[in-house]
Amino acid sequence: MHVAIPLYPRFTALDAVGPYTVMAFAPGCTVTFVAAQAGPVVDDRGSLSLTATASLADVPRPDVIIVPGGPGTAEALEDADLVAWIAEAHEHTLWTTSVCSGSFLLGGAGLLKGRRATTHWGWLEHLAGFGAEPVSERVVVDGKIVTAAGVSSGIDMALTLLARLSDVTTAQAVQLAMEYDPEPPFDAGSPATAPEGLADRALRLIS
Amino acid sequence: MHVAIPLYPRFTALDAVGPYTVMAFAPGCTVTFVAAQAGPVVDDRGSLSLTATASLADVPRPDVIIVPGGPGTAEALEDADLVAWIAEAHEHTLWTTSVCSGSFLLGGAGLLKGRRATTHWGWLEHLAGFGAEPVSERVVVDGKIVTAAGVSSGIDMALTLLARLSDVTTAQAVQLAMEYDPEPPFDAGSPATAPEGLADRALRLIS
Repeated sequence: MHVAIPLYPRFTALDAVGPYTVMAFAPGCTVTFVAAQAGPVVDDRGSLSLTATASLADVPRPDVIIVPGGPGTAEALEDADLVAWIAEAHEHTLWTTSVCSGSFLLGGAGLLKGRRATTHWGWLEHLAGFGAEPVSERVVVDGKIVTAAGVSSGIDMALTLLARLSDVTTAQAVQLAMEYDPEPPFDAGSPATAPEGLADRALRLIS
Repeated sequence: MHVAIPLYPRFTALDAVGPYTVMAFAPGCTVTFVAAQAGPVVDDRGSLSLTATASLADVPRPDVIIVPGGPGTAEALEDADLVAWIAEAHEHTLWTTSVCSGSFLLGGAGLLKGRRATTHWGWLEHLAGFGAEPVSERVVVDGKIVTAAGVSSGIDMALTLLARLSDVTTAQAVQLAMEYDPEPPFDAGSPATAPEGLADRALRLIS
């Protein structure tokens, strides 16, 4: 099972590394980070580079793609090679997936027309511009397309995906290996539960 | 506020990138990945490199250190420069923290004697070898030392830390920005809740 994660400038690192960890811990899965060219790609904070070990052209037919989001999505939508790679890879994938605003790149590749899909709560309604039906759920499966909500939701998405790719017991073993038994110290991870006025403050941190 | 995350060969990427995301999203925090030398450091799966932008010697007095774990911890304990850096940085930190088996490196630096501390459930009892009192909790605060349980627990640790470094509202804003409202698809993230027999299978995935 070959999983490819495309990187582009100003992606959000956890969008990529959360699902990467799930898939890379799974037996029989190989994960490759790809980018326009092989080499380091700088994230949205400017302080972390992840290394792509292959170019997009090197990996035309992965079994699974996981497209991370981040403030760089807007520019990435103008990157015709990246958008074309997503569209063409999707022709052959078992699963085509995204985290956060990575779903806009699936949309840009024309994959979300008439599909239920999600993204970060701050930009959910923008999905309608790609012909998608925006859905306020953490993980949305529609056919072979799986979209996840903001940043940290990629972990939940990848465990859901792994259970379908292999089986529930394998996904549970990975969950236990990574001790994913979350205990957030606050109940502020969703606009539905966060204290009033926090949404604007949160969006300013990542815009 | 200057946060340093030391990398070493065969660290676990999510141990570093979970807390990195929390701290890097926080206003006024600068995070630097450091290593023996600046440059890419390969993770425990061999398929992802994170780039250290400074050497350990370049960053002697960060305000906070976050030491990730991973299968490479055993060899890292033999790395006298790394262990000495942790011990010496700790003299001046506001907070000295670890994720997963990163706590063994705090132990190797002599910081856990008589302290309550935690690590991944699979190796919790090993902490006693460093003079620590092993505690089966997700995040353990003892003085200015904060240790977290396995891999994904670094996110909970960093939110707890950020609330103390700045304030609760800032930590909640970061939690909302990263949409950390976890919905694990299975209740298998702890040996207490996982199906019987899963622990051995999980440990084989990461050993």
